Amino acid sequence: MLDLTPDELLTTTRTVRRRLDLQRPLDRALIEQCLAVAVQAPTGGNRQDWAFVVVTEAERKAAMADVYRRAWDRYVEQGVLAPPSRPDDPTERRQARRIGRSARHLVDHLHDVPAIVVACHHGRFDGRPAVVQASMYGSVLPAVWSFMLAARARGLGAAWTTIHLFYEEEFAQILGIPYAEVTQVAMVPLAHSVGVDFRPGRRAPVEDVLFWEAWESGG
Amino acid sequence: MLDLTPDELLTTTRTVRRRLDLQRPLDRALIEQCLAVAVQAPTGGNRQDWAFVVVTEAERKAAMADVYRRAWDRYVEQGVLAPPSRPDDPTERRQARRIGRSARHLVDHLHDVPAIVVACHHGRFDGRPAVVQASMYGSVLPAVWSFMLAARARGLGAAWTTIHLFYEEEFAQILGIPYAEVTQVAMVPLAHSVGVDFRPGRRAPVEDVLFWEAWESGG
Repeated sequence: MLDLTPDELLTTTRTVRRRLDLQRPLDRALIEQCLAVAVQAPTGGNRQDWAFVVVTEAERKAAMADVYRRAWDRYVEQGVLAPPSRPDDPTERRQARRIGRSARHLVDHLHDVPAIVVACHHGRFDGRPAVVQASMYGSVLPAVWSFMLAARARGLGAAWTTIHLFYEEEFAQILGIPYAEVTQVAMVPLAHSVGVDFRPGRRAPVEDVLFWEAWESGG
Repeated sequence: MLDLTPDELLTTTRTVRRRLDLQRPLDRALIEQCLAVAVQAPTGGNRQDWAFVVVTEAERKAAMADVYRRAWDRYVEQGVLAPPSRPDDPTERRQARRIGRSARHLVDHLHDVPAIVVACHHGRFDGRPAVVQASMYGSVLPAVWSFMLAARARGLGAAWTTIHLFYEEEFAQILGIPYAEVTQVAMVPLAHSVGVDFRPGRRAPVEDVLFWEAWESGG
């Protein structure tokens, strides 16, 4: 276990893609420990309607990586997700290119990552109102983040990804997930990290995103 | 700062409702610190398209509490969110009643909580496909959870809530949030906690929610 203060833990748990150790075996007990910590995250009404599929088999990982590659190509081609908020900012453009190269690296190596965790929530929520969507995602995504934080404390690295959801049904078939009854919410490749010397990332100043009392009066 | 290991932090950050200290003032600097930690959480493409409105004004909190009370009544009457997974389990029924009483306590005292944080993401995602929903919520809910974890490390208590979203537009008006352009994702009442001796909560065994290799083969 790394000796990290709460703030160190929360500010140095980064998206790890290039620094995933693809050679070093990953003990199942470590993954179980991370999950035992993760399920202490809150859920609406303490319902815990979550499930986590962890894949280590080579053939199944290869099938997942194939879907992920197609999802990535579609993501790049279509730019379906939200565009950058400041597309004319050269720093942001540079960063976007760097993230793009790192993400592409993950696409090319996903099949070699020791474990891939797919987080799920029971029920389908497509087209439901925001109050239901926020409740469902709010009842599983904190656990996903806790999982990544618990992994970081154990010298592991992970990356939060969602683009495989372009092909969620195909992914469900690969994993045997009953698509009509279960929503996938994130895919988290997991490995020992190459080194543990992660630093806080580049972020906009807090005053840019913090409004006191009302939207207009601050920020 | 509490001296907590990563696992202690992640397993003892509980939903705090009855043990919110409604008398003790809450320093703004503490809230800013928590947010500075929170924004180190990951976002898709490092876009950081989030915003956090923190309300401490009595009149505005009263207006929020009024909406929240109506949302609670609607939640109770309609049971709109997912039903419990094991409604026939007496333990679960007892727990549901206990959570109900605690939540009702928050409804009755929300206007007296020192600060209420409303987490937002730019853009509206109503009716968008799951890949977009998962990416949006995945780009702000980790920060909300980090905020609560950073608060816990500072002796604060908080509760993750979503039911005000039944009346999201009305809430947006109270807070000056441009509803058509900004999605609210969670409301987090925040205060010093009465004591800091929180323990891990009751959870289903990990083996019930962890599937190795495929949905059918484990759990």
